[in-house]
Amino acid sequence: MSTHDDVVYLDHAAATPLDPAVLKAMQPYLTERFYNPSATYKEAQAVHADLESARAGVAHWLGAKPTEIIFTAGGTEANNLAIRGVMEQFPEGNVVVSSIEHESVLAAAGACKHSMAPVTPEGIVDVAQLEKLLDDATVLISVMYANNEVGTVQPIRRITQLAEAIRQKRAKSGNKLPLYVHTDAAQAAGFLDLHAARLGVDMLTINAGKIYGPRQVGALYVQSHVILAPQMLGGGQERGLRSGTENVAGAVGMRVALDIAQEPRQREAKRLQDLQAYFITQLQQALASVRINGSRKLRLPNNVHVTIPGIDNERVIFQLDDRGVICAAGSACSADSGEPSHVLRAMGLSDDDARASLRFTMGRDTTKKDIDHTVQALVSSIVP
Amino acid sequence: MSTHDDVVYLDHAAATPLDPAVLKAMQPYLTERFYNPSATYKEAQAVHADLESARAGVAHWLGAKPTEIIFTAGGTEANNLAIRGVMEQFPEGNVVVSSIEHESVLAAAGACKHSMAPVTPEGIVDVAQLEKLLDDATVLISVMYANNEVGTVQPIRRITQLAEAIRQKRAKSGNKLPLYVHTDAAQAAGFLDLHAARLGVDMLTINAGKIYGPRQVGALYVQSHVILAPQMLGGGQERGLRSGTENVAGAVGMRVALDIAQEPRQREAKRLQDLQAYFITQLQQALASVRINGSRKLRLPNNVHVTIPGIDNERVIFQLDDRGVICAAGSACSADSGEPSHVLRAMGLSDDDARASLRFTMGRDTTKKDIDHTVQALVSSIVP
Repeated sequence: MSTHDDVVYLDHAAATPLDPAVLKAMQPYLTERFYNPSATYKEAQAVHADLESARAGVAHWLGAKPTEIIFTAGGTEANNLAIRGVMEQFPEGNVVVSSIEHESVLAAAGACKHSMAPVTPEGIVDVAQLEKLLDDATVLISVMYANNEVGTVQPIRRITQLAEAIRQKRAKSGNKLPLYVHTDAAQAAGFLDLHAARLGVDMLTINAGKIYGPRQVGALYVQSHVILAPQMLGGGQERGLRSGTENVAGAVGMRVALDIAQEPRQREAKRLQDLQAYFITQLQQALASVRINGSRKLRLPNNVHVTIPGIDNERVIFQLDDRGVICAAGSACSADSGEPSHVLRAMGLSDDDARASLRFTMGRDTTKKDIDHTVQALVSSIVP
Repeated sequence: MSTHDDVVYLDHAAATPLDPAVLKAMQPYLTERFYNPSATYKEAQAVHADLESARAGVAHWLGAKPTEIIFTAGGTEANNLAIRGVMEQFPEGNVVVSSIEHESVLAAAGACKHSMAPVTPEGIVDVAQLEKLLDDATVLISVMYANNEVGTVQPIRRITQLAEAIRQKRAKSGNKLPLYVHTDAAQAAGFLDLHAARLGVDMLTINAGKIYGPRQVGALYVQSHVILAPQMLGGGQERGLRSGTENVAGAVGMRVALDIAQEPRQREAKRLQDLQAYFITQLQQALASVRINGSRKLRLPNNVHVTIPGIDNERVIFQLDDRGVICAAGSACSADSGEPSHVLRAMGLSDDDARASLRFTMGRDTTKKDIDHTVQALVSSIVP
């Protein structure tokens, strides 16, 4: 059973517990190795070297140079830096995002000239429609790698190929504006290949707090040729792009978290895919009306997102909680708003169906027994 | 002896070790209480309640309402939020800062219309000169509570009284622009009264990493009437001013760090003042040419900042390090720049004297024996 003996935790998209190995790696930097890595004495320089080693470790999984990794205080900050850091330089430029991005991408893009590409009913960005939104003033495309609500995996490679074709056309026509592609890989980093050159992206966001690493720790991959305007001004840390005393414990923790996630990536993805298929089958057998949202094929292995017409998802969440199952109505970031999910709306769900939807996101400890318990608890929560 | 048995650490202005009681308080949120506080189930709501309790605990020491405390990822972010959050709304407005502010204040102000008030040779802001810089378009004054290099304590109360007088004049003359006062209390929080109403400030920055709390954790006090433009966009956490999944462990840690710093504040300040006087006397006896920089009276009790004409401070730092004493040439945030300190320049020191200056910042574990050892090590580093 996952995490705690008394509870089945199926909200790993909202938060993951810190892996004990991650905490162990962080511990020295929380205690005796507390020195400010920007100081000049040898104890501080040793800590600085450890920070750079963590940076190289993160860079490894992205196929990046260490200097291309900018540590941030989480995924939201990385997304803000990517979008505002580009757009600030091009007040007449525009950014194209998908309509199912995380709030931090939508809000940052919303502060600039922007347009939103639609998604299919399966929750996949429509690349042909996205292409139509690109014009001569588009300087940035930001499409998430995997969606945080329905778990759909987006066609990043096709989007970066499209961007490359446009860049070549611009070179011929004399349009000197850049066209960058950013992807928010906060949810993908636990399961998918992060190699930036294979993906073709110019910028990529990772978030340690979603991969059993420390909270409020993230990074932005920024390919060497990308010029960003810094968003946090001050002492000039992180190549001037992100000032503030470095969080060495956090960086070391993220590196270890990424190692643990990426090394056995394919094996763990396979295990979860099997569990996901089992979960869906059990749900369909138990509840005839259940609908699975989002592509079955292009999907994170840990995500099961359902609509059960007629239910009130907030009520069911509390009833499941009483039965020892933790799941979500959608993104925690927008849980407070009371608004139906913008992701489900973009996929064409009615507001009533959106309010009858539940997100289950499995984790490393999730077992078949947990799924059985969850399906039983769900049935007894719905059918009184 | 401080912190480690083999080293006298006198760079507490750059970084403080995490207090064991702080780490202990954080631990549950690093492990079993990992839930996303914005989620709706009862386990997450319990964590949310702990976050709000930490907020109330921080607010207590500032005499603030809990809603007036915005958690940030450190002091730099809090300073950026205060300055850019105001100035973004008033493109024609200006901000007045002192010439000895932290890099994060100088850089944020530098991105707007700004002017810099001079300081006396003692390192105290010249309020009469500052007053002359204020005009009808000034919307913000930002003066630090205590300086991070020379430890001088600034006349915040006089500045806020001045601002209040101007606000009253503006009310009569029909000038509807606000005039806010912000103070960066990152270095002050360990020793001085933080009560915002007594100080009269509208915004105040604290930084847990400088008071034996967690790194990359800070807060901005924002009085209820102050309107800020959010600097981190997304899920709308922290009253919409600072999006991103909340760092509950960090917030809880900062609260405990503040409790530990503020409760015995006067007793610890007295102990350090005695040590500071002893340190200065010993230095003056051992090195005839030594000069103490910054006001002796208006000064943090843990700071001893000296110029020893003719020395190369970088070289002496390494020699002291070899003799088991850790100190600094200036702020770690600008250690890499190679430029002489802007603080010392503002106080009228020549570049040669700035390069012959050392900062010693004591901490909770610093003893008389540490000071004796430091003075001996300094003498043998300088006189070969």
